[in-house]
Amino acid sequence: MGTTAAGDGDAAWAAEHKVNLSARRPFTEAVRTGLAETFFPDDPFRGFGSLPPAARAWGAVKYFVPALEWAPRYNFGKFKYDLLAGVTIASLAIPQGISYAKLANLPPVIGLYSSFVPPLLYAVFGSSNNLAVGTVAAASLLLASIIEMEVPPEDDPQLYLRLFYTAAFFTGIFQTALGVFRLGLIVDFLSRSTITGFMGGTATIIILQQLKGMLGMKHFTPKTDLISVMCSIFRNRHEWKWQSAILGICFLLFLLSSKQLRKKKPDLFWVTAIAPFMVVVIGGIFTFLVKGDEHGIPIVGDLKKGINPLSISQLTFESKHINTVVKAGLLSGILALAEGIAVGRSLALIKNEQIDGNKEMIAFGIMNIAGSFTSCYLTTGPFSKSAVNFHAGCKTPMSNVVMSVCIMLVLLFLAPLFKYTPLVALSAIIIVAMIGLIKVKEFCHLYRVDKFDFFICMVAFVGVVFFTMVIGLSASVGLSVVRALLHIARPKTSKLGSLGGSEIFRDVRHYPHARNIPNVLVLQLGSPIYFVNAGYLRERILRWVEDEENACKLDGHDLQYMVLDLSGVTSIDNTGIGMLEEVHKSLARKGIRIALTNPKLEVTEKLVLFGFIKDVIGEEWVFLTVKDAITACRYALQRSRSKEDGEV
Amino acid sequence: MGTTAAGDGDAAWAAEHKVNLSARRPFTEAVRTGLAETFFPDDPFRGFGSLPPAARAWGAVKYFVPALEWAPRYNFGKFKYDLLAGVTIASLAIPQGISYAKLANLPPVIGLYSSFVPPLLYAVFGSSNNLAVGTVAAASLLLASIIEMEVPPEDDPQLYLRLFYTAAFFTGIFQTALGVFRLGLIVDFLSRSTITGFMGGTATIIILQQLKGMLGMKHFTPKTDLISVMCSIFRNRHEWKWQSAILGICFLLFLLSSKQLRKKKPDLFWVTAIAPFMVVVIGGIFTFLVKGDEHGIPIVGDLKKGINPLSISQLTFESKHINTVVKAGLLSGILALAEGIAVGRSLALIKNEQIDGNKEMIAFGIMNIAGSFTSCYLTTGPFSKSAVNFHAGCKTPMSNVVMSVCIMLVLLFLAPLFKYTPLVALSAIIIVAMIGLIKVKEFCHLYRVDKFDFFICMVAFVGVVFFTMVIGLSASVGLSVVRALLHIARPKTSKLGSLGGSEIFRDVRHYPHARNIPNVLVLQLGSPIYFVNAGYLRERILRWVEDEENACKLDGHDLQYMVLDLSGVTSIDNTGIGMLEEVHKSLARKGIRIALTNPKLEVTEKLVLFGFIKDVIGEEWVFLTVKDAITACRYALQRSRSKEDGEV
Repeated sequence: MGTTAAGDGDAAWAAEHKVNLSARRPFTEAVRTGLAETFFPDDPFRGFGSLPPAARAWGAVKYFVPALEWAPRYNFGKFKYDLLAGVTIASLAIPQGISYAKLANLPPVIGLYSSFVPPLLYAVFGSSNNLAVGTVAAASLLLASIIEMEVPPEDDPQLYLRLFYTAAFFTGIFQTALGVFRLGLIVDFLSRSTITGFMGGTATIIILQQLKGMLGMKHFTPKTDLISVMCSIFRNRHEWKWQSAILGICFLLFLLSSKQLRKKKPDLFWVTAIAPFMVVVIGGIFTFLVKGDEHGIPIVGDLKKGINPLSISQLTFESKHINTVVKAGLLSGILALAEGIAVGRSLALIKNEQIDGNKEMIAFGIMNIAGSFTSCYLTTGPFSKSAVNFHAGCKTPMSNVVMSVCIMLVLLFLAPLFKYTPLVALSAIIIVAMIGLIKVKEFCHLYRVDKFDFFICMVAFVGVVFFTMVIGLSASVGLSVVRALLHIARPKTSKLGSLGGSEIFRDVRHYPHARNIPNVLVLQLGSPIYFVNAGYLRERILRWVEDEENACKLDGHDLQYMVLDLSGVTSIDNTGIGMLEEVHKSLARKGIRIALTNPKLEVTEKLVLFGFIKDVIGEEWVFLTVKDAITACRYALQRSRSKEDGEV
Repeated sequence: MGTTAAGDGDAAWAAEHKVNLSARRPFTEAVRTGLAETFFPDDPFRGFGSLPPAARAWGAVKYFVPALEWAPRYNFGKFKYDLLAGVTIASLAIPQGISYAKLANLPPVIGLYSSFVPPLLYAVFGSSNNLAVGTVAAASLLLASIIEMEVPPEDDPQLYLRLFYTAAFFTGIFQTALGVFRLGLIVDFLSRSTITGFMGGTATIIILQQLKGMLGMKHFTPKTDLISVMCSIFRNRHEWKWQSAILGICFLLFLLSSKQLRKKKPDLFWVTAIAPFMVVVIGGIFTFLVKGDEHGIPIVGDLKKGINPLSISQLTFESKHINTVVKAGLLSGILALAEGIAVGRSLALIKNEQIDGNKEMIAFGIMNIAGSFTSCYLTTGPFSKSAVNFHAGCKTPMSNVVMSVCIMLVLLFLAPLFKYTPLVALSAIIIVAMIGLIKVKEFCHLYRVDKFDFFICMVAFVGVVFFTMVIGLSASVGLSVVRALLHIARPKTSKLGSLGGSEIFRDVRHYPHARNIPNVLVLQLGSPIYFVNAGYLRERILRWVEDEENACKLDGHDLQYMVLDLSGVTSIDNTGIGMLEEVHKSLARKGIRIALTNPKLEVTEKLVLFGFIKDVIGEEWVFLTVKDAITACRYALQRSRSKEDGEV
């Protein structure tokens, strides 16, 4: 199939070697496909078409309530595993619940409440078998830092608490709405780099916050940035308590060595898992015996017995606070979703299971709405707890039910016993949990492989540590989005040369031995061709042509054809087509002809609709492959030359 | 070169048919290329390398001061054309300057001042030969609508005026900065659809504003939306003056018929061009003769003689107003740039000249900064004036100098004569200018070819007409950006089938007769593979595999290979590579092997750097073409089958 092929005129060959210009989907079909790909990429209801209506309805119910999927097949063999996992995460949930509630300046018992109701709901609506539900440090601190600016907890602790409930309510509404409208892709805009930097920065400032507890201080700044916290600590040096500090260091060493143990002997993961609980128990007994609260070791204080009181009447929608509450709810909601979904996905991947992001959002949403009615604040699927759940061998969301029951028993009978828990023990638990989130190795890896990703990560880290969490997060996400937009604003163009006996055409920068094609410039365009880049592409294409013309002149011949390879272009809009017309006009003035190769379905549709192919380029100048286009160019060239010779 | 080729072992063939994995640009080179493509797509200093330093410096000066380029070659032949064009646009500049200043509630003489200094500066720094500088209606109204909210012009006209100067100053700083930092691409985010809708909406509300002048009313709402304006007009019915209305309708009919004339006889363009000036002159004489101001025809009033007074001391940077002023400056600056650059580009295209967007921005910036020092408000290159300039045959920016001189003469000697100009004449001039900006045909065209573009356009139109100009503009730009981001969030994936004797592989949706390849799934991925779409792509690829597995089962064979065609992927980030690793892991569990074909330079670099090719896929599974990949798959399949047969 050399240069003679174009003249063969073999009908079958020609039919196979032509761009299908008539493939045009009806408008509704194109819109339907577009919407389905955007919002239902997982096509949840496929295979439903052939079922009778009743089975279809039952399938839909099962889709929204995954518990109906696993519950009928549940048995004692699975329960044994879930029981062990549930008890293990309950032992983690108690100290973490109390700690994170303290981190958010809430009454400690709220942390326990938040580990009772939400896990029950997640067990019904959640689709992950590995996720353990609970409060998280980052979102707790974020909520506190936003709400404290509006209502300082010292001034009106009751209102402060009510705003937390209300924020959780809005979080729930927001998460449910995202799930229902299948807008899970918003979470996709938090890149791994952003999350790494943000988590590292948040862990750093949370550790700094713990210096208050470690030093047994009473007064502390509500701000979270490094400088404010350091000033606050050194200004109040007279409040430092050495007793608290010594006890704290002991706890820290114990917790850190239990973590080391797990690294060396992975089978003993349960020792690490219950170590925080042991710290709380041992610390409590110790403080009770030495009456620590009278000797410079602050304690948690009274914990009310009894399960969650209703809080639905406490939600407050006053216009005065509504802005702050909605902002806190949205931001912490996105953060919680990102953590929860990432955890669910990465654990599911190990077991080769599937997680439906939109379904998860609805589950999180329902659990937060119900939580806000029952004295809980924001919950999600935290990294640490879920990993413990996974390693403890959980089989189904039943482990969340077991944890929930354990917490219920604690709330009903044991809560007052936690009165003597020293605050310093909670600080030590938080610090150890947070150290694991500062992933220095990941920072180094990012630096090595992608400087821009590293920069995005550092922006999040520095923003959180030196300014606020919101600034760090939004600056980093903003940069990621700008980077994505830049990609659209500057699509790649490359000149192709021929490889492998003139059969294959590839970028000459990538394959330096690729040969030039005399009289023809082959350009490959990147995707998409949009209004954003139409101006750029026009200038860039004309510059390629100019450069090629100069190169041709040196070789003593003329540039006569430009082949535009559109095989990489997945989308074009009306400004883009206008740009191609302008390029065509400019080149026509120089006597250069344009040939198009391999436009894709969506692009072909648009080009045909605009009349670009028929009225501007001419159907005979659209080819299936670059090779065909060049063959045609050569053929036309030969013909015009022999004509000239004939005339001479 | 059929299926036997893979076994040939011809070294030369192999070398030509391998992906160049070693092509790796040094980091600095990659960054340099990336930055150059992003910020210097036009490569302004190319060809400088070979020059001596003095010539290089002179070249750079000439680059920044285009006047040095054309001035030495200027001659009387060109001047004749520029003189005619300059006088014509001056006759347009006087009524337009006064009208738009009235539209912005400024003293009319400011409009004349703004047509004196800025054109002189543009003539030196501007790179367009066709642009005529002056004030524009849309930006005038936008500035007024923002600044009026802060300081109503009735309350403190002096402060109101000072805020206009200051806004122009910030516009200038902003435009210069954009040009210097080569951020011209910001303007690219205003798509043709957005501009069409925004201009149409703005023209509509400007026409509505003119009802005040047409009806000779005194009180009017500062708001611009349709409903407020209509309420204001009908509430103050007692202020309506029939004399004013009748005169206005006469002027309107005259102007409209002069426009019709130009459509029929393009040679008589100058009649259309001076028609507004004639309306002003005739209207002035008429009002003077009948003492119109005492009979219900309001007039412009006193115009001070003399050229622009300095206003540098009037700029105000008080913290009280700074936010409003900066906002007004930025928004009107972007708008003015978009109009100016679009006009310059489209006129240059007709003459086959080049316009440098970034250089234009610097020119606009300098002219606005200098303007804010000399009692001018925001200026740019308006559509109407520049088109007249172009049709009058201007050759260089000298026509701006001629206009400037004419305006100077008017300011020095004739200004008081314009005292009797009836306001209704100005309203008629504005209405006729604005009618041309409501492009109903363009709306219809958009509706026909792209529903989403039409929607973006309508959002701008409806937003401007029913809410505010800022809301309309930002909603429309926001939607455009979301659309661009969606394109990134959902890259296309398509299954390829073989065409033309198994040589060519194309999308099966586009070419329904393309043949399936047994045991092999060929997927083509869209670009880019980023954190935003990594999750989506993973799910989508796995779904393609699942569907193909089911199809294969029906045919009674297994899916054993997946060929990922990366030829359309121009960029990949670390999350994207992580996604490919996960897909590889999932498929390996099912016993499906992955082959890659034709990764581009940037993608190859990243994949090699991450160790993905060496450690995960294996170098022998990366191919230059899909055909090679499939040949290799078939060969491996045959070998494993014959092995099995041998074992049996």
